[in-house]
Amino acid sequence: MPEFRYHPVSKVGMKPGEIVHVGERKIDKIRIRVIDFDSTNFEEKELDSIDQCIEYKNKKTVSWINIDGLHNTGAIAKLGKDFKISPLVLEDIVNTQQSPKIEEFDNYIFIITKMIYFDDKSRDLIFEQFSFIFGENYVLTFQERVGDVFEPVRERIRTSNGRIRKRVADYLAYALIDVLVDNYFLVIDKLNAKVSEMEDDLMNDPTQKTLKQLYFVKRELLKLSRNVRPMREVAGYLHRVENPLIEERNKSFLRDLYDHTIDLNESVDMNRELVSGMIDTYISITGNKMNEIMKVLTIMASIFIPLTFIAGIYGMNFDNMPELHSKWGYFVALGVMAAVGISMVIYFWKKKWL
Amino acid sequence: MPEFRYHPVSKVGMKPGEIVHVGERKIDKIRIRVIDFDSTNFEEKELDSIDQCIEYKNKKTVSWINIDGLHNTGAIAKLGKDFKISPLVLEDIVNTQQSPKIEEFDNYIFIITKMIYFDDKSRDLIFEQFSFIFGENYVLTFQERVGDVFEPVRERIRTSNGRIRKRVADYLAYALIDVLVDNYFLVIDKLNAKVSEMEDDLMNDPTQKTLKQLYFVKRELLKLSRNVRPMREVAGYLHRVENPLIEERNKSFLRDLYDHTIDLNESVDMNRELVSGMIDTYISITGNKMNEIMKVLTIMASIFIPLTFIAGIYGMNFDNMPELHSKWGYFVALGVMAAVGISMVIYFWKKKWL
Amino acid sequence: MPEFRYHPVSKVGMKPGEIVHVGERKIDKIRIRVIDFDSTNFEEKELDSIDQCIEYKNKKTVSWINIDGLHNTGAIAKLGKDFKISPLVLEDIVNTQQSPKIEEFDNYIFIITKMIYFDDKSRDLIFEQFSFIFGENYVLTFQERVGDVFEPVRERIRTSNGRIRKRVADYLAYALIDVLVDNYFLVIDKLNAKVSEMEDDLMNDPTQKTLKQLYFVKRELLKLSRNVRPMREVAGYLHRVENPLIEERNKSFLRDLYDHTIDLNESVDMNRELVSGMIDTYISITGNKMNEIMKVLTIMASIFIPLTFIAGIYGMNFDNMPELHSKWGYFVALGVMAAVGISMVIYFWKKKWL
Amino acid sequence: MPEFRYHPVSKVGMKPGEIVHVGERKIDKIRIRVIDFDSTNFEEKELDSIDQCIEYKNKKTVSWINIDGLHNTGAIAKLGKDFKISPLVLEDIVNTQQSPKIEEFDNYIFIITKMIYFDDKSRDLIFEQFSFIFGENYVLTFQERVGDVFEPVRERIRTSNGRIRKRVADYLAYALIDVLVDNYFLVIDKLNAKVSEMEDDLMNDPTQKTLKQLYFVKRELLKLSRNVRPMREVAGYLHRVENPLIEERNKSFLRDLYDHTIDLNESVDMNRELVSGMIDTYISITGNKMNEIMKVLTIMASIFIPLTFIAGIYGMNFDNMPELHSKWGYFVALGVMAAVGISMVIYFWKKKWL
Amino acid sequence: MPEFRYHPVSKVGMKPGEIVHVGERKIDKIRIRVIDFDSTNFEEKELDSIDQCIEYKNKKTVSWINIDGLHNTGAIAKLGKDFKISPLVLEDIVNTQQSPKIEEFDNYIFIITKMIYFDDKSRDLIFEQFSFIFGENYVLTFQERVGDVFEPVRERIRTSNGRIRKRVADYLAYALIDVLVDNYFLVIDKLNAKVSEMEDDLMNDPTQKTLKQLYFVKRELLKLSRNVRPMREVAGYLHRVENPLIEERNKSFLRDLYDHTIDLNESVDMNRELVSGMIDTYISITGNKMNEIMKVLTIMASIFIPLTFIAGIYGMNFDNMPELHSKWGYFVALGVMAAVGISMVIYFWKKKWL
Repeated sequence: MPEFRYHPVSKVGMKPGEIVHVGERKIDKIRIRVIDFDSTNFEEKELDSIDQCIEYKNKKTVSWINIDGLHNTGAIAKLGKDFKISPLVLEDIVNTQQSPKIEEFDNYIFIITKMIYFDDKSRDLIFEQFSFIFGENYVLTFQERVGDVFEPVRERIRTSNGRIRKRVADYLAYALIDVLVDNYFLVIDKLNAKVSEMEDDLMNDPTQKTLKQLYFVKRELLKLSRNVRPMREVAGYLHRVENPLIEERNKSFLRDLYDHTIDLNESVDMNRELVSGMIDTYISITGNKMNEIMKVLTIMASIFIPLTFIAGIYGMNFDNMPELHSKWGYFVALGVMAAVGISMVIYFWKKKWL
Repeated sequence: MPEFRYHPVSKVGMKPGEIVHVGERKIDKIRIRVIDFDSTNFEEKELDSIDQCIEYKNKKTVSWINIDGLHNTGAIAKLGKDFKISPLVLEDIVNTQQSPKIEEFDNYIFIITKMIYFDDKSRDLIFEQFSFIFGENYVLTFQERVGDVFEPVRERIRTSNGRIRKRVADYLAYALIDVLVDNYFLVIDKLNAKVSEMEDDLMNDPTQKTLKQLYFVKRELLKLSRNVRPMREVAGYLHRVENPLIEERNKSFLRDLYDHTIDLNESVDMNRELVSGMIDTYISITGNKMNEIMKVLTIMASIFIPLTFIAGIYGMNFDNMPELHSKWGYFVALGVMAAVGISMVIYFWKKKWL
Repeated sequence: MPEFRYHPVSKVGMKPGEIVHVGERKIDKIRIRVIDFDSTNFEEKELDSIDQCIEYKNKKTVSWINIDGLHNTGAIAKLGKDFKISPLVLEDIVNTQQSPKIEEFDNYIFIITKMIYFDDKSRDLIFEQFSFIFGENYVLTFQERVGDVFEPVRERIRTSNGRIRKRVADYLAYALIDVLVDNYFLVIDKLNAKVSEMEDDLMNDPTQKTLKQLYFVKRELLKLSRNVRPMREVAGYLHRVENPLIEERNKSFLRDLYDHTIDLNESVDMNRELVSGMIDTYISITGNKMNEIMKVLTIMASIFIPLTFIAGIYGMNFDNMPELHSKWGYFVALGVMAAVGISMVIYFWKKKWL
Repeated sequence: MPEFRYHPVSKVGMKPGEIVHVGERKIDKIRIRVIDFDSTNFEEKELDSIDQCIEYKNKKTVSWINIDGLHNTGAIAKLGKDFKISPLVLEDIVNTQQSPKIEEFDNYIFIITKMIYFDDKSRDLIFEQFSFIFGENYVLTFQERVGDVFEPVRERIRTSNGRIRKRVADYLAYALIDVLVDNYFLVIDKLNAKVSEMEDDLMNDPTQKTLKQLYFVKRELLKLSRNVRPMREVAGYLHRVENPLIEERNKSFLRDLYDHTIDLNESVDMNRELVSGMIDTYISITGNKMNEIMKVLTIMASIFIPLTFIAGIYGMNFDNMPELHSKWGYFVALGVMAAVGISMVIYFWKKKWL
Repeated sequence: MPEFRYHPVSKVGMKPGEIVHVGERKIDKIRIRVIDFDSTNFEEKELDSIDQCIEYKNKKTVSWINIDGLHNTGAIAKLGKDFKISPLVLEDIVNTQQSPKIEEFDNYIFIITKMIYFDDKSRDLIFEQFSFIFGENYVLTFQERVGDVFEPVRERIRTSNGRIRKRVADYLAYALIDVLVDNYFLVIDKLNAKVSEMEDDLMNDPTQKTLKQLYFVKRELLKLSRNVRPMREVAGYLHRVENPLIEERNKSFLRDLYDHTIDLNESVDMNRELVSGMIDTYISITGNKMNEIMKVLTIMASIFIPLTFIAGIYGMNFDNMPELHSKWGYFVALGVMAAVGISMVIYFWKKKWL
């Protein structure tokens, strides 16, 4: 459960604004990719050094600089200095245990989000921090390792001649969050499928394994909820905020995004309620099963214990037991046993236990 | 549980405003019906092509254009272009996994609602998306398939000479939502009947089936709640909003509608609480049943096991067992057994287990 | 549970403002009673026809017109027309499945409340809708059948020379709601008594019947809560509203009324919490009982099963069983049995099961 | 549970403002004590008649008039008339089943509070209503019987030369509430001690008695919560209100009081959560105990039942049973039994039931 | 559980502003340490007497005076008088059972916080009160004993030439709270580790000990929650407040602090939900275990009880039992037993109990 360790132990007592990478080091070397475009131009390349980024700062075109890998804090500090980013922001970028949030600054907007993957093998959710900074004509993005969910956006920039090429950084930032949020739905879809499957298990043949799965899905939903709830705040803030960096004509897209985050949250909440209901039902079914088992035991024991007792009586070796010498004694005894047995059966049948 | 898949997997990474049908394709061909009226004129017909709709846009009369089927996104895009509808709205219309919502635009108001049916066979609720766009003198409605709950409204337009013929598009839109909401009460009535019935089952003879039904009704109520809660927001918004498209004289109807959605929500919440209470009670009853079963077992076993033991003693084959040769040994043994048995009965009777 | 059917099935698709009686028809003929008074005059009579009501509309004196029976929608429509009441209000009056609410109009205030009785026989709560309309000098009240809780108010009007005779319609309306709310306390007192009684049952000798009673009281409290919560809104609204129909000097009474509705709600909530706690306790007690039963069974079985086995060994008929022929074999066997039995007793005693 | 009967049955239908004593009559005769002081003067005496109170009304000194006993409604009405108190206030004073509240009037402020005692014998909480009215230079207090928690305040007035003697009625009122609230902490301390003790019981040897105690403490906490929550409103109101009767320089004391009531509420809530957690734990422990009992039973029965069966076989009296006549038959049978028994033991040991 | 006794019993009835030490006396003698610095100067020393503090009051440099030990109320009163601190504040400082809070005064800001330690031995949380008063150029801090978490801050002041030396008292106060809050994360990390460990126990081999641990962790989290929730209010207040004592340029640090307290609260809440879920799961697992035990018992008993009965029949000693004398009787009997036994096995196998 590394996601639960929100705060770096090693940071206690450090001075604020000190840029310390917190989290697993997931790749060896940071990688810097730039996509630079406007409605007519397009350029995509990989930079060798962080020093080259500065030239994109004041270009008229929209530049998307993506950094993979957060452990090289020196490079990030350099980038921050070049783009005049607050040290506190840089500190948050490299601390991968932040909750999603949005902060406005004079010349840029800073957003922390999470990419969420469903790891099919471990059946756990994996959270990777993805931070944005966008100014008037640049978007800086930071992720923990190579590989992300934004390939469709890149493809749209490369090939399209449409909106994404005509608008500026805020629209690009929106497009990125939009893909991110769409991706959350994929994760929820997988959890939904899992929940459906567990519901079938529950109704047909619930086992201890079902219970443990329910517990784990509940836990994953809790973690998911913790990460998607702040996304609603982020989207709502973007949709409401008055900031020259956000063009009025993009507001309807942001409202749409906001609606999606609301749907997302409701979907997570609904699944959580469903899973809770399933756990309760599981407990009830367990109780029912016990009842059934107990009934079988009770019936078997209650019928045969008295009969065995009767047999026991006539197995005694007393010299003087008149019944033993009666000609029909054995058959009378069998008859009594049958009568007792049948009475018990009728009794249980009347109790509706049979 | 297809209702739980809110978001189209296939849409991830698409550009916003792209009109992609999301959901099951429920009919073969879209069908376009128009009802066009004012206080003196009335016309009802079926259009062959989406291109004919445009002529109703600027007519002085009120035109209700109803589209059945959402898979023909080309036709809907055409209609949207003719009526100057935002692509984001069109995207929402054909994505059948939206939550109910309302959005104001410059020249029209857009509302997403759900038609809810109770499928008597599967005992599941079925949700069908129903979207409205209404401008000054037209109402565009979109549904997933032929067949809806609005026949009474059509009949009132056809035959009546009353309010519905004298007012404009906002009143028609109100009349449609009103019927929709009235219909929700029908669904809740059926669920109520089901809840009542389950309550009887619970009190008289609860079985595993009762539990599963409780679980399913709980789940349906959760889904229902998710769809009726936003309807209250929609009605509240309509009732409060200041928009030239909504005539002041219709406000009292909208308040009435709002009151109904409040009642609706309370009714759903109340049923949810009732069902939760019933599940708790079910668990308790299960516990009681177990107690009863255990008591029978305990009584039978506790009485006969010691007696069988006594019989076992005198069934032993030791050469030297003086009691066996006593003349009254057998009868004394029987007497001891009777005494032990009766003591046990008295003990249980004192414990109030009999 | 007829209280749960809030909305008339037969109304779906009707036009708004259509006056349709919804609910059971509880009396044969509507009955119209008038009390007309000011500080010096007093008149009380029964009217034959609804047409006679109009003459009280503009009288200087305060007129209280009470209608028993709601099925004669024609008469109510006539009255509404005479007093210029909105059709939507009339629709609400005859639909007996409304929640309590208050609505302000230009020349009158409309209030829906519920009279609540505790039916001693069925132990159910009975809800009867009671609606008020009050203008400057008239109060119209509507109830489902003859017989109400307002006799003390009538008596005060008849005999008193005090405040009720000196003030106008708003004070009369207040006096009526005040009695209504006082009456809720009576109902809650009865439920309290019931809850206390169940608490005793729970602590002394809880049975399955206790559980069912707990469930039913919980349900009644849920229904009660649903009806008293909106009463707080109604009283709060009356207390805060600025309306010429409500005299400033009556505000302190309305605040008092509001305080009472708050107490009422808290009292209902408290009882609900108590009952929930009792249900949890019931479940625990059930678990304890089971433990006790199991202990008895376990002790009996664990002691005697091994002893019976020993007896069984020496009941075998092998030719060569040396112990059988030993002189003291039998007594040694008895001794071993005693030793085993006593060990078991000590073991259970150490486990504190005895 | 007399505290649960909030409203006087006998009052239904009475006119508002009618002063009717509601509650138990706890003393025979009302008792009137006056403490009259300013920074230099001090007088303390007992009055014979309510008529003497009037002379303190306009005295420059601060007068604290305390009435013990509420049944003499005539006297209280007289006092109310002399001090120009609203009849609704007097009605609330003598109705001992009010919730704590505060009301501002033109020339005085009215506060209802509760004195809470922990009755060590019955282990129940006892609530006694304590009402204040304070004007510019008088404080009227009303309690149900002789004996209260304010002796330290009296002592401070008698002996001190400090703040309490130098300020006016609002400070005295504050001092009284402050003592009252301090006293609540005493009650909570006792409940805390009880909760701690129950926690020990729970962890060491929980019995049915523990459960019942948990239930009762939970109920007392519920009642306590119902009475301390409104105290926070009262203190918050006093702290925020702009009223000439409350001197600005006392505001910091009132904020302090408010902080205490917040702590108080949190403390009550925390205890309620703790007790709820303990009840859940109790249920789990019960389940564990059952498991342990069942294990013993299962082990004993599962080991000996098959063995007894084997013994039973060779106890049969068939003529032709070859094994019986084998020389080593008996010993082989004993060996088989031992083998079966040991296998069972190993099986249970592997299941970790031993 | 000394943390639960929030309020000093001994204080009831004392006058407000009276400075009484409440809590355990944790050290013998109070200790006064001063750190005095500005960007160029640095001095650190221990004072012998409280009287020496006054000289730091109006020094231009920033002075941090730290008092260890709260029992010497005289010294603290002296200090308060020198620095013109309100007696109510001093009262709060020495009462160690306050909740965290912040109060603004004319010339200083007062903050109560808690240092939280995880006692590895007792596995309990330990709360120590830590209060701040900061004016323009001094910070007074009060703690219960020697030893705290602020050594890193001291070290930064001693060695650094950075921000902490260049700014004034508000930044120092911020730095202290920041370290305090960082420290909370350490505590939560330890609880997280504990929760993870318990989750493993739960999934693999839950015992009664697991349950008790869950209960205790739940209780610690409740206590923690009670202390960290107000910290969010404190940080939020600091971040929003307009006060000349707080420099504008420090606002971004305070926002950062506020974000941390939000993360902290969410982390605590998440752990609480996790632990609650684990307790529910524990109960279910207990139920499952019982099922398994019952199954073994039922299977053993149900198979062998009927067989033993059959053996019992042919162990009877009736003279006339024809089967006994049949040549193959014994073998037929064995066959019947085998048939019955196998049928039972098949039955249980079909029920999936095997």
